[in-house]
Amino acid sequence: MKHFSSISAVEHPNKLLDLALACKANPHQWSDLGQQKTIGLLFFNPSLRTRLSTQKAAQHLGLEVLTMDVGSHGWKLEFEDGAIMNSDKAEHIKEAAAVVSQYCDLVAVRCFPSLTDRSADYREPVLSAFMKYASVPIINLESATAHPLQGLADWMTIKENTQKERPKVVLSWAPHPKALPQSVANSFVKYMEVADVDLTITHPPGYELAPEVAKGFTVSHDQAAAMKDADFVYTKNWSSYSTYGQVLTQDPAWTITSEKLGNAFFMHCLPVRRNVVVSDAVLDSPQSLVIEQANNRTFAAQAAIISLLKP
Amino acid sequence: MKHFSSISAVEHPNKLLDLALACKANPHQWSDLGQQKTIGLLFFNPSLRTRLSTQKAAQHLGLEVLTMDVGSHGWKLEFEDGAIMNSDKAEHIKEAAAVVSQYCDLVAVRCFPSLTDRSADYREPVLSAFMKYASVPIINLESATAHPLQGLADWMTIKENTQKERPKVVLSWAPHPKALPQSVANSFVKYMEVADVDLTITHPPGYELAPEVAKGFTVSHDQAAAMKDADFVYTKNWSSYSTYGQVLTQDPAWTITSEKLGNAFFMHCLPVRRNVVVSDAVLDSPQSLVIEQANNRTFAAQAAIISLLKP
Amino acid sequence: MKHFSSISAVEHPNKLLDLALACKANPHQWSDLGQQKTIGLLFFNPSLRTRLSTQKAAQHLGLEVLTMDVGSHGWKLEFEDGAIMNSDKAEHIKEAAAVVSQYCDLVAVRCFPSLTDRSADYREPVLSAFMKYASVPIINLESATAHPLQGLADWMTIKENTQKERPKVVLSWAPHPKALPQSVANSFVKYMEVADVDLTITHPPGYELAPEVAKGFTVSHDQAAAMKDADFVYTKNWSSYSTYGQVLTQDPAWTITSEKLGNAFFMHCLPVRRNVVVSDAVLDSPQSLVIEQANNRTFAAQAAIISLLKP
Repeated sequence: MKHFSSISAVEHPNKLLDLALACKANPHQWSDLGQQKTIGLLFFNPSLRTRLSTQKAAQHLGLEVLTMDVGSHGWKLEFEDGAIMNSDKAEHIKEAAAVVSQYCDLVAVRCFPSLTDRSADYREPVLSAFMKYASVPIINLESATAHPLQGLADWMTIKENTQKERPKVVLSWAPHPKALPQSVANSFVKYMEVADVDLTITHPPGYELAPEVAKGFTVSHDQAAAMKDADFVYTKNWSSYSTYGQVLTQDPAWTITSEKLGNAFFMHCLPVRRNVVVSDAVLDSPQSLVIEQANNRTFAAQAAIISLLKP
Repeated sequence: MKHFSSISAVEHPNKLLDLALACKANPHQWSDLGQQKTIGLLFFNPSLRTRLSTQKAAQHLGLEVLTMDVGSHGWKLEFEDGAIMNSDKAEHIKEAAAVVSQYCDLVAVRCFPSLTDRSADYREPVLSAFMKYASVPIINLESATAHPLQGLADWMTIKENTQKERPKVVLSWAPHPKALPQSVANSFVKYMEVADVDLTITHPPGYELAPEVAKGFTVSHDQAAAMKDADFVYTKNWSSYSTYGQVLTQDPAWTITSEKLGNAFFMHCLPVRRNVVVSDAVLDSPQSLVIEQANNRTFAAQAAIISLLKP
Repeated sequence: MKHFSSISAVEHPNKLLDLALACKANPHQWSDLGQQKTIGLLFFNPSLRTRLSTQKAAQHLGLEVLTMDVGSHGWKLEFEDGAIMNSDKAEHIKEAAAVVSQYCDLVAVRCFPSLTDRSADYREPVLSAFMKYASVPIINLESATAHPLQGLADWMTIKENTQKERPKVVLSWAPHPKALPQSVANSFVKYMEVADVDLTITHPPGYELAPEVAKGFTVSHDQAAAMKDADFVYTKNWSSYSTYGQVLTQDPAWTITSEKLGNAFFMHCLPVRRNVVVSDAVLDSPQSLVIEQANNRTFAAQAAIISLLKP
């Protein structure tokens, strides 16, 4: 694997999962791997879990960490080829990526989508530019359309919490007041494709995921039917893909409650809006795996870093 | 001690003082204690001394440091139980505290008061929530009503600068253009209660501290009489407790001058407004202990961390 | 050398250059020098290269790093002696510098000019105040009028890319939409004075550098004539010194193109406005040294730190 951009870049996903679980079992066993090496963390958007867990992962591996809040620490970047840079963008990604990667052995980047131009977002302008112009491997800390470290942490969590050969997993849309990216849902589906699970996707009409993501899975507009006998219910809001970036409904009938959940485990990537996405009762119950999912982010990041640093 | 929330949480304050002084004498003697351990520093408000001295303390102890400027790095938190989170608050403290504490062995939090709702501020909503929902010990880096690391550094400074058995210490209010918390004054009085000193508090009418803080001490509205024969004059502005959060006066007659100070040492927690709180002549004289107080912040933080990490 | 404020403070510039090149050849050879030592990095202005390369340099030397974004992390500082601090400035530089330097063995400061008051800027109020009130050596990370770490990195780059005894170096002004400091140009000229090069300066009328900087060098308003047979063309925008801080022209005839450059190497400190300062064709050609200049910033910083830490 050259870059950890999405699960498609991972040659042996099951080995990556095993590595992440091995990191969790003994976080310090590769503490020499990062000696005299540096990881750069570049944030174009806010971050709590990702920021802290990736730093923690780097520290477990003995790496030095350089963190940049692009925007507040730096300046606006230009991404267009051939641009005449006489307005507010002070530096081109060509220079920024080349320079930053000189100071680092790995560069990890977070950059959310615009949610205004679908074809631009799905071309991943920022992540692609870093992969093109940086001289070192790039790690995706959530891009316009994918969040592969979250997906790996989610997969770990399912693996740790089932004895079934083929558990039933449901990905359910939930209401939210703001327009959110499809990145977490996209990556979750991609990982579930690799994992040996029975996946059902449920959402209101108009919230269909990209055809290349949802293809081959059962999709239902009937949340109750979809959730029947589920072992895991992964809940997440996303804005519309077809009417791109729009909030079409905030229907509270889609909020996850204890009654709907039955005996299933509840999963969410966090941050979560209580009593909008999911009820307090679910989050405060032992069926909620959200805190463990966040914990697993550290080991997912460790596995990605190890995979890129080891030949 | 489970959390370092205020001096009330400290079982043996005199041992803590001795530990802080021992850290100052040999800052690196416990450099193995923090190996493979992480401290998280969460700032809801700006910080200079606290940020740097706590990091420095952590480095002396071999701890890794994860710093978060909540707000600029993260998002707005919800603190109310049962809230329907459909407005601007993206995450509940229940998740935020549980998640952050998973990545850390200690979490240190700075969060100032609103100064608009006294009973809410004195219930310490943020600090209490972290103590309730985090899975690791919490350190108070200045909360709504207390600043115990400052108080410990102040006590160290008095101890280092007196040979008297029972020095006379005066806490004097001083003018300031902005409404400030009572936290520093509250903690200073609490530490002086434990220290063997003769404490007098002086302030204009309307600036009485909370009854549970000032109880048992001499309180005077006559600054000159209060400061007579003082060994140490600790100066600090605070806004009114009775007319909560208000600036009732900025009377320059309360500014500390060399004439008023006599032979006493001058103390202040910094940052200090020159020629408003205290004259240049006092701050630039050898009677000023303010720089040493700031220096002692490192060792106060070290002592607090050691106390929480050691069984 | 007491402080690394400008090249004028460096007793043996050629030894400093050799040290920087030695750091590049073997970055980790002095990794014990910084053990149990701390460098503070204070940013009054945004920074990418400087922030990352100085941290990287510190890590190579085993130093702990404390980074402060003054402004967003802290508060506004007062620099005037005798000020009555009753407005928006919460702390005087006297206290801030004394306190910060207690936590550090070295303090590095970035503070840009106002570009509104020339005599104030050229007195270097912020850098001078830190040198006066801090108790440890100060490193200039770009001040109002100088950028000595950039100048040292630039000198390294020229040294590495010429076999000539006395190469021809041209410093050419270039257009830019915003008013920029003279600091980079000033420091480059000062280093070239020490290096054994043939320096020509070229800019439109009204862009003369300070007399004490340009004195003794060939200055031309004819860019083409100045660039004839150049080995290195260092390009940089600066605002007017005589009509202080003003943008007098943005004439695109001054943009550097491949045609103008001939066989010379192209240099720029970055960030660079593509197709305003210089054409894409130049930057994307092997004649461009800008990425290597940025790389050399790490070793320039390492050399400065070593010089200040070693007796």
